[in-house]
Amino acid sequence: MRLLTRLLSSAIATKSANLAFRKSCFSTKPPSVPAWGSKKSNRSVKLNFPLSIMADPKTEEILAPFRASVKEQGDIVRSLKESGAPELDVKKAVAELKLRKKKLEDKELALAPASASFDRAKMEDLLKRRFFYDQSFAIYGGITGQFDFGPMGCAFKTNILNLWRKFFVLEEQMLEVDCSILTPEPVLKASGHVDRFADLMVKDLKTGECFRLDHLIKAHLEKVAAEKKTSVETKALCEDIIVKLDGMNKDEMNGVLQKFNIKSPLTGNDLTEPIEFNLMFGTQIGPSGLIKGFLRPETAQGIFVNFKRLLEFNQGHLPFAAAQIGNSFRNEISPRSGLIRVREFTMAEIEHFCDPNNKSHPKFETIKDTKMLFYSACSQMDGKPAEHHTIGDAVATGLVANETLGYFMARIHLFMVKVGVDPLKLRFRQHMGNEMAHYACDCWDAECLTSYGWIECVGCADRSAYDLTQHTKATGVKLVAEKKLKEPKVVDVVEPNINQGLVGKTYKKDAKLIVEVLNRLDTEGLHQLEEALDSDGEYLIDAGGNSFKITKDMVKIKKGQKTVHTEEVVPNVIEPSFGIGRIMYSVFEHNFRMREGDEQRTFFSLPPQVSPIKCSVLPLSNKPEFNVFVRKLSQELTSYDVSNRVDDSSGSIGRRYARTDEIAIPFGITVDFDSLKEPHSATLRDRDSMSQVRIPLDDLSRVVSDLTFERIQWTDVAAKYPKFEQQEATREA
Amino acid sequence: MRLLTRLLSSAIATKSANLAFRKSCFSTKPPSVPAWGSKKSNRSVKLNFPLSIMADPKTEEILAPFRASVKEQGDIVRSLKESGAPELDVKKAVAELKLRKKKLEDKELALAPASASFDRAKMEDLLKRRFFYDQSFAIYGGITGQFDFGPMGCAFKTNILNLWRKFFVLEEQMLEVDCSILTPEPVLKASGHVDRFADLMVKDLKTGECFRLDHLIKAHLEKVAAEKKTSVETKALCEDIIVKLDGMNKDEMNGVLQKFNIKSPLTGNDLTEPIEFNLMFGTQIGPSGLIKGFLRPETAQGIFVNFKRLLEFNQGHLPFAAAQIGNSFRNEISPRSGLIRVREFTMAEIEHFCDPNNKSHPKFETIKDTKMLFYSACSQMDGKPAEHHTIGDAVATGLVANETLGYFMARIHLFMVKVGVDPLKLRFRQHMGNEMAHYACDCWDAECLTSYGWIECVGCADRSAYDLTQHTKATGVKLVAEKKLKEPKVVDVVEPNINQGLVGKTYKKDAKLIVEVLNRLDTEGLHQLEEALDSDGEYLIDAGGNSFKITKDMVKIKKGQKTVHTEEVVPNVIEPSFGIGRIMYSVFEHNFRMREGDEQRTFFSLPPQVSPIKCSVLPLSNKPEFNVFVRKLSQELTSYDVSNRVDDSSGSIGRRYARTDEIAIPFGITVDFDSLKEPHSATLRDRDSMSQVRIPLDDLSRVVSDLTFERIQWTDVAAKYPKFEQQEATREA
Repeated sequence: MRLLTRLLSSAIATKSANLAFRKSCFSTKPPSVPAWGSKKSNRSVKLNFPLSIMADPKTEEILAPFRASVKEQGDIVRSLKESGAPELDVKKAVAELKLRKKKLEDKELALAPASASFDRAKMEDLLKRRFFYDQSFAIYGGITGQFDFGPMGCAFKTNILNLWRKFFVLEEQMLEVDCSILTPEPVLKASGHVDRFADLMVKDLKTGECFRLDHLIKAHLEKVAAEKKTSVETKALCEDIIVKLDGMNKDEMNGVLQKFNIKSPLTGNDLTEPIEFNLMFGTQIGPSGLIKGFLRPETAQGIFVNFKRLLEFNQGHLPFAAAQIGNSFRNEISPRSGLIRVREFTMAEIEHFCDPNNKSHPKFETIKDTKMLFYSACSQMDGKPAEHHTIGDAVATGLVANETLGYFMARIHLFMVKVGVDPLKLRFRQHMGNEMAHYACDCWDAECLTSYGWIECVGCADRSAYDLTQHTKATGVKLVAEKKLKEPKVVDVVEPNINQGLVGKTYKKDAKLIVEVLNRLDTEGLHQLEEALDSDGEYLIDAGGNSFKITKDMVKIKKGQKTVHTEEVVPNVIEPSFGIGRIMYSVFEHNFRMREGDEQRTFFSLPPQVSPIKCSVLPLSNKPEFNVFVRKLSQELTSYDVSNRVDDSSGSIGRRYARTDEIAIPFGITVDFDSLKEPHSATLRDRDSMSQVRIPLDDLSRVVSDLTFERIQWTDVAAKYPKFEQQEATREA
Repeated sequence: MRLLTRLLSSAIATKSANLAFRKSCFSTKPPSVPAWGSKKSNRSVKLNFPLSIMADPKTEEILAPFRASVKEQGDIVRSLKESGAPELDVKKAVAELKLRKKKLEDKELALAPASASFDRAKMEDLLKRRFFYDQSFAIYGGITGQFDFGPMGCAFKTNILNLWRKFFVLEEQMLEVDCSILTPEPVLKASGHVDRFADLMVKDLKTGECFRLDHLIKAHLEKVAAEKKTSVETKALCEDIIVKLDGMNKDEMNGVLQKFNIKSPLTGNDLTEPIEFNLMFGTQIGPSGLIKGFLRPETAQGIFVNFKRLLEFNQGHLPFAAAQIGNSFRNEISPRSGLIRVREFTMAEIEHFCDPNNKSHPKFETIKDTKMLFYSACSQMDGKPAEHHTIGDAVATGLVANETLGYFMARIHLFMVKVGVDPLKLRFRQHMGNEMAHYACDCWDAECLTSYGWIECVGCADRSAYDLTQHTKATGVKLVAEKKLKEPKVVDVVEPNINQGLVGKTYKKDAKLIVEVLNRLDTEGLHQLEEALDSDGEYLIDAGGNSFKITKDMVKIKKGQKTVHTEEVVPNVIEPSFGIGRIMYSVFEHNFRMREGDEQRTFFSLPPQVSPIKCSVLPLSNKPEFNVFVRKLSQELTSYDVSNRVDDSSGSIGRRYARTDEIAIPFGITVDFDSLKEPHSATLRDRDSMSQVRIPLDDLSRVVSDLTFERIQWTDVAAKYPKFEQQEATREA
């Protein structure tokens, strides 16, 4: 009974947390939208730095009551949990805690000094106009939640993925795999996705229009609460329900639907009962229609089902990490927020398999001084701001559970900054107990601050032995590693000694299966069997869905001892999981710029390594003698792996530079009349500073290559070569 | 009536050819299996060089009657076509032609001298054992037609794709895009896939087991024909049907099923009527169940629907090429032949958009001397062997339709050889008239000779304006480019002059749509409208599924002339389409080797640039002082972008080299006792020749990097550094 309760409660925890966790990076819940942000109006929003890194006493004074309010509720949650209070009470208290946290965060963001202003509409215009990405199948009316990456978006994405591969796979000698997207049902049944990867929705009974249930209720109750005629009691009730909505189950939500007689907001028609809508895309594999399959909702399962092959490839040694880059699919009920909530997305996932009793990391020393922003579960409960620590300190003090988890968090931080995330807008938020899967030991999300609020971009979790155990249960295939014992030990052995002849004679074609089942019994199973045979002389076993009677003469239980040198362990998994589209979106926001004094001249200040194209080549004139130089330069740059684009259109150099700035080209070469004279040279321009130097043609491609791959900085170039001003003055005005 | 016939016949042509063509790379037809090959037995097969490159008079003597037989039938087909014979007659003649071609090819292959022997079972064992790739979800029983790439397969694939991107996208400044996989139905309706991308199958009425109809009939009739009791007449009939099977339609095949009373070969149960089984995986997009979608069967459509955005990105200029790398999906009825026929596969496709009247290519000069093997449609009809020409000659003589097509064919050839395809086992086969889509001007497949026969790996087709035209028809969005006229010209203009007020008053909410339809009428449509209004005073138009009466006072037809400086053209498309898995498989076969004298020591002699890992680092001893050198070398190699693998296991150096050879690591460093002494040095070994040199540690990483990226060859290294023999002699024996 006790076990059943635990299973049930963990199933519920799983529903709201475990799978919320598996979905962490791409949760079907919308990211929290700060009060000053608005998805619909799409107007300019002021983007402020997070308060957590400020320390203004006045601001703290204003925030004090908000912090106290969070802490008060945090303490209530803690004491409820400690006293073993009923789950529903805990849930309600947690919902209230979340609400208070949200109010605190909104206040923090609102109070932060305006250090930068960000115009989302302007950025989206640029992204669309220069086809970084845009809605898929637009000429057919388009599909929400699907995007096509144009040349610049695609190159940016490829560069991020190549850098990821170099930074993680190559540097750490990970085993990269490339597994199938179409996944048969049993695999996702074992992982829990078939049963629990779902959102509640209702349908308009007449039109079939679908609504996400929590969104619908919230919108309706907010409307009711705002109406003048609504009584004070009803208003209070609405607010109470909104607070508790996050923790409500299907029946409770249905009760709210009935009580408030909620109809379709579009047509006023009646609605269906709440329906669990599984977020996986289903299909049939093969022509028979009998093999049900899904498009994978994450890439991780492909790694888990290949664990044995990978362990063998690694010659049986732990630890090792496997990695996979690929597309996953989630049939969102109502996709929104551009690249942040989509139906088809690229992930990059790592599964680091290690000894459960040894989560130290040999390279932890190399990153231990990395300074990062931690928003711990405790700080969240206590209403405290996020704090800076080195990862070394965070692991030493137990804030982060172990070295391996800490190592990956630091590497994630370094990677994010490398691809262009603003370190001031990057934090690691720890999952609170109620958010975390029941099997996970510790879990941190790398979140980026954008105009949509803090959005989860990378999850990093210690998932313990959960996934391998699930697949072992489902298949009977042991997914374990052998660990050498420090010294041999003597263990008790219990084995069945089966009279195969008798079993065969008795059960004919079923005999093989029965023998298999008997051989697979664990120590406890064998013990039960022995007891039953001793007391009753027979025992019923299940095999292939049928029951078979096993008698005393069919099997004896052999007991003994043996000396073993190894033991089997189910490896634990540390899982960093990257949502590439979300990282791309954050990098776009963090690097969107307007030229001072000319708000129409917008551009992206992307780091050269991830910029879609590295260098432009612009002839000042269309005269044929320029062509020779332009073509030679372009070829030379290509031979240095520097992607480049020639723009010989007739616009002024300034206009052409503005066009190349828009697509984030960090360096620009202009071939001018002086280039034709000996010694041949050309000007090189830096996108961010707009400063220019004149460089001999013989040096030029190598210099651009060194800049591109960040072997040197622009300041080095500016120090070495003469500054060039004339062209800029006359043409770029 | 004439138009109807043309449409119907082209629809039929489309069924058997157009979509056979769109599927060309991954045709649902099994690749032709030479007589000496056997998919089932999986025993060693002798792989011979294609005869086409030999010129042995004796062999030619034997082949002469086979060649004559093909030519005879080729002439019959030609004359039938010229005389406008009924389509069925042509089809039957073509089927007979194909049979004779097949006999000739089998004979050619059988007669070729055995210059290399190939053991497929041995290769497959190695691929599986070292997890290059293996069946997906094997612990769940696996799914046919799906494969997971392990670390080595994945790295090999990534290297091929990166090389492809460098060779095509970067070098040619193509516009690479990354589009959605989930595709709404209307897009694939327009492309023809919804209606025609299907194979015929039958199902076992009781078990639901599915069979591809043509496979089933062929197998049954072969069995009947082989039975002793079968009469001579029936045997002849069976053979006749087998020959004609390829050209039969659903009803004809059903007739055969009935006549021979064919049952399920597995159960003897009755079968269903033939069913058209669409090869696309279907699913629903969004929760409503109302938006039907498919997993894309090719990446090309994503490029076509983005044509406008891409043209704009290219500032309106033609020609330009777009490219896409990504996964596509085909629900094969019975996948087989390993990586060759799978349900999920990676493609790399290029769509080169150009002026229909100018298919010259500015870089044709750079590749015109490339020598390639051409198997033209004429040679196939005449029973002649494939011939070597330069691509320059092939275009000059009209064998290849135009420069752009020729340019891409040569680039494909060069790419294939670069990634490891044996140039002696690579040919370009031209589609014969009956294979080619009715809209295609010319089409060549790059085929690789493998133990499965010649398999198509890359298709290269001039698809004319077909795709853009189809999407324009379906959406009403003009997919055209503006072309500047050499000199302005005066053109007739016919435009509707609509009385919008009257239309609005008459048709209220439908008015907008009606005006749109009127404005979209082309010259001929306007002409019809005018005639009708003149004679009858009214005209019915269709808008939004309803008919509306247009009267004389609602619209007048304005006629005039204007001077235009540009004209609109629908660009033509040259489409090179790469099947990455098939290329990988061919490269595996072409580079599988056994060490002389030791057949158990098998390895892959992959080119360094595509080898999964470039260098191994092996310490001769486990003493800690070796570790310092090993770690430093590994880090240094990584900093040079040279992926590497340390093997400090306890096996002998020879055994460890054998292991690294298996996974195709081209270079191996051994840190030995001499390495510890000053001046520090280590040995470097070449996988293919097994020869070794001793190199100072200071030079080593750079040398390996130069070798890896093919800036130098092993012979250069062997000439510069002292040969090392001792270790090899004592350890590798």
